[in-house]
Amino acid sequence: MRIDVLTVLPGLFDCFLSEGIIGKAVQSGKVEVNVVNIRDFALDKHKVVDDVPYGGGPGMVLKPEPIFRAYEELTKEGEKPYVILTEPWGETFNQDMALEFSKKERLLIICGRYEGVDERVKALVDREVSIGDYVLTGGELPAMVIMDAVIRLLPGVLGNEESLKADSFMDRGLLGYPNYTRPAEFRGMKVPEVLLSGHHKKIELWRKEQSLRKTLKRKPEVIERLKKEGMLTKEELRILEKIEREMEGGKES
Amino acid sequence: MRIDVLTVLPGLFDCFLSEGIIGKAVQSGKVEVNVVNIRDFALDKHKVVDDVPYGGGPGMVLKPEPIFRAYEELTKEGEKPYVILTEPWGETFNQDMALEFSKKERLLIICGRYEGVDERVKALVDREVSIGDYVLTGGELPAMVIMDAVIRLLPGVLGNEESLKADSFMDRGLLGYPNYTRPAEFRGMKVPEVLLSGHHKKIELWRKEQSLRKTLKRKPEVIERLKKEGMLTKEELRILEKIEREMEGGKES
Repeated sequence: MRIDVLTVLPGLFDCFLSEGIIGKAVQSGKVEVNVVNIRDFALDKHKVVDDVPYGGGPGMVLKPEPIFRAYEELTKEGEKPYVILTEPWGETFNQDMALEFSKKERLLIICGRYEGVDERVKALVDREVSIGDYVLTGGELPAMVIMDAVIRLLPGVLGNEESLKADSFMDRGLLGYPNYTRPAEFRGMKVPEVLLSGHHKKIELWRKEQSLRKTLKRKPEVIERLKKEGMLTKEELRILEKIEREMEGGKES
Repeated sequence: MRIDVLTVLPGLFDCFLSEGIIGKAVQSGKVEVNVVNIRDFALDKHKVVDDVPYGGGPGMVLKPEPIFRAYEELTKEGEKPYVILTEPWGETFNQDMALEFSKKERLLIICGRYEGVDERVKALVDREVSIGDYVLTGGELPAMVIMDAVIRLLPGVLGNEESLKADSFMDRGLLGYPNYTRPAEFRGMKVPEVLLSGHHKKIELWRKEQSLRKTLKRKPEVIERLKKEGMLTKEELRILEKIEREMEGGKES
């Protein structure tokens, strides 16, 4: 996959593209990332990329020409990219979108600024995406979040172990069970007995119960949906009944 | 404000803390950020920070000791920090939370890994936070997203202009109106006449209508809630009625 990023702050991406799992994916050529400074495509000698909004109001708006010129330079050859604009009011990013994007040959991400991007830029854009309901200083972190979620799904980027864990992580929207590692006792806090038992069936049951219990408490709507869609096993339904009986009895742990 | 960050990938934060608005806030001392490598607090000579999970399964789990030791070293003196753990199954981050966090004297963010953090670490934690429903390679980007949203709210970090714009941006959850800047015509695409009119009342009305129209289309639940809570002005209700009549007539633009 190739990803082009259009931004007014290219330096923000250096660390992201050289460290950790993403750094390795870039170095090993599993993904080609090309960060482009919009400023390099400004028309005037002062390299101006924004201007005051028509109609007045505070803040500056990213001008259309430099973005169009950068886009055209980048797409002179090769496959047409799928174009994403980070936009506070866009569709909320989720794992299904990450999966969808990971199947594209080529992405181009335009980093918006919350001060605004000239509306005409949207003529280039396939998808306006927000990463959540909060205000950030710019679209650069959202672009990194989207890239991170997408790149880790590309073949060979994660080891088998990590992929397996991620699969279980995404299990029907249920929340994960608690994790423990050595030591078995740490400052008076003990690892639950069952995890030390070596009894695989019991461990699996315990984890399932913890996961269902946490989901019921924090995201009851997920349990409702899974029940309605018939997506829970008989065993899971039995565990849920037990938890619900406990909760009614005021004995919830 | 002081923010301590505990991570296994401290290098990821360098660019974020030196570029753009956040970089300026750090350089001017509006926020003090201290990124700490958890590995420096490992007990053994190999600086091991993770281990296999008790009970089996794929992936590695961050060990409790190095995190506790780092926490204790950082909190020997001064105010006790408000401790946030980035955790895929935590509460979903939003602007209210950013506002709440921005009022703390001191934050400490522990970057989780989706492979897991020993459950006992949560004894240190005030809040488990997720930035959205997608899987990332680690908790570092979420930590930066939280920091970005919080730091930009600190006094003096944004200029007046930007603050004003941000306020209007957060107007009751309504989506923003389209922005335009020069040129008035670009590749056949014209800026809407009204914005060039200089007629402030008309411009305001046009923007309001665009904002309501977009919200009704993309997030109808926001309009429903505002109606129910009596949070819309008479003028806004009148505009909405007009839009709804148009939509029923199949003339929606």
